[in-house]
Amino acid sequence: MTRTDPALLTDLARTALAMADAARPAVLAHFRRRDLAASSKEADRFDPVTEGDRACERALRDALARLRPDDAVLGEEYGATPGTSGLTWILDPIDGTRAYLSGAPSWGVLIAVADDAGPILGLIDQPWTGERFFGGPDAAWLDSPHGRVPLATRRRTLDDATLFSTFPEIGTPSDRAAFDRVAAQVRLTRYGLDCYAYGLLAAGHIDLVVEAGLQSYDIAAPLAVVKAAGGVVTDWRGGPVWRGGNVVAAGCPELHRKVLDLLATAG
Amino acid sequence: MTRTDPALLTDLARTALAMADAARPAVLAHFRRRDLAASSKEADRFDPVTEGDRACERALRDALARLRPDDAVLGEEYGATPGTSGLTWILDPIDGTRAYLSGAPSWGVLIAVADDAGPILGLIDQPWTGERFFGGPDAAWLDSPHGRVPLATRRRTLDDATLFSTFPEIGTPSDRAAFDRVAAQVRLTRYGLDCYAYGLLAAGHIDLVVEAGLQSYDIAAPLAVVKAAGGVVTDWRGGPVWRGGNVVAAGCPELHRKVLDLLATAG
Repeated sequence: MTRTDPALLTDLARTALAMADAARPAVLAHFRRRDLAASSKEADRFDPVTEGDRACERALRDALARLRPDDAVLGEEYGATPGTSGLTWILDPIDGTRAYLSGAPSWGVLIAVADDAGPILGLIDQPWTGERFFGGPDAAWLDSPHGRVPLATRRRTLDDATLFSTFPEIGTPSDRAAFDRVAAQVRLTRYGLDCYAYGLLAAGHIDLVVEAGLQSYDIAAPLAVVKAAGGVVTDWRGGPVWRGGNVVAAGCPELHRKVLDLLATAG
Repeated sequence: MTRTDPALLTDLARTALAMADAARPAVLAHFRRRDLAASSKEADRFDPVTEGDRACERALRDALARLRPDDAVLGEEYGATPGTSGLTWILDPIDGTRAYLSGAPSWGVLIAVADDAGPILGLIDQPWTGERFFGGPDAAWLDSPHGRVPLATRRRTLDDATLFSTFPEIGTPSDRAAFDRVAAQVRLTRYGLDCYAYGLLAAGHIDLVVEAGLQSYDIAAPLAVVKAAGGVVTDWRGGPVWRGGNVVAAGCPELHRKVLDLLATAG
């Protein structure tokens, strides 16, 4: 098995799409329900999880078990399940549970499949709007009720760039200072879109996403989509980030390098 | 003519819906266009306007001129047009131009009609997702590709509430301090949704929207929708806000009163 085998790639893409299809009814059944309850995973801050998260991950795992039972799984809600194929599916059933709880359609279902070298392909699915961003070695597209369009990042200079991050309260105080150095140089900074921001980056509508403290299941699928569309995704030092960490995703290499320099400057 | 005349209300609702229908193709024709250009209305900060804003307001005004030519208009892009009926249509063709430029579907087309006492009815339309929030004296509903649901706010205590605001950089430093007193008390604070947040408030998914420095065209339509759904919308001192100012919108009167108290506390 190699990650460039066309038959394997076809099967992985077919599996990812079937998993996303299976997840949609499961996750929409709880979205905007007036009686949707949230419990917090952590005692000292509100880190919510809902029955929507759990139902969605079960639907993803059930579909995978039918189609590719030998692959491993790493999911946010149900943890790690070993496999024998050398491939691991990295799943975040709802990236942006706070948005999901608020009724805002910026959350997404994240599905990626990786070998030891990193994600091979991935998708960001938004079941409420019907938007699906897909990226792999031979395809990068957005499907929506408005049709299918190819995904391709755009090239912008720093002073003309649009930057997104999910929270203004980003990481540690020194992370925040580094982020502010970037925000001070761009044309527009916006907050709040969770994984949807990576879709907009892949589609060439924005230029940068900078975030701190992500887990592998938060970034593996967005990374696959953005890279397939021509973007660059690394940690804040330029190293691989698909296992988690502080993320900088940029539409082109020149912009990515400039942001790395700003992030590295002593505060 | 009185604002409670059923025939008038029917005609106003029909007109508002026809205007929103006419605006959709005009505003979608420019959304997510790779060559969409933005110019800034102000020299010292990025306050963008696009051809999408202007085309949308022209479509709204053209539809109104056909249906109710005697009403006055106040629009963000083309200013005030006098009328003779005693009614004024208050239009923001794209509330959230920064989101529109970024490809994010949190912007909306805002349509309200007011007499001297304030908005009679209004709507928030999101053409990309196909969602339309409507509120008037005898109706409050959300239409979307998922069907029509009634709008009704929910009742939550402050420590269980979700708060939204468009920018973390809210108003003056003292405005920001007042906002932070509220944010410190709620369960969850999120940023970035523009007018869409008022729709989520009306639908009972969130509890508070607090913003500073709004214009009449930013708040007249959201106010009509939220009030029709059972919510309370005033300025930060509890007075009328439909002509613009600092806004607090809450799902129920008790929560609204608590937030007014927090906003008024000396910082």
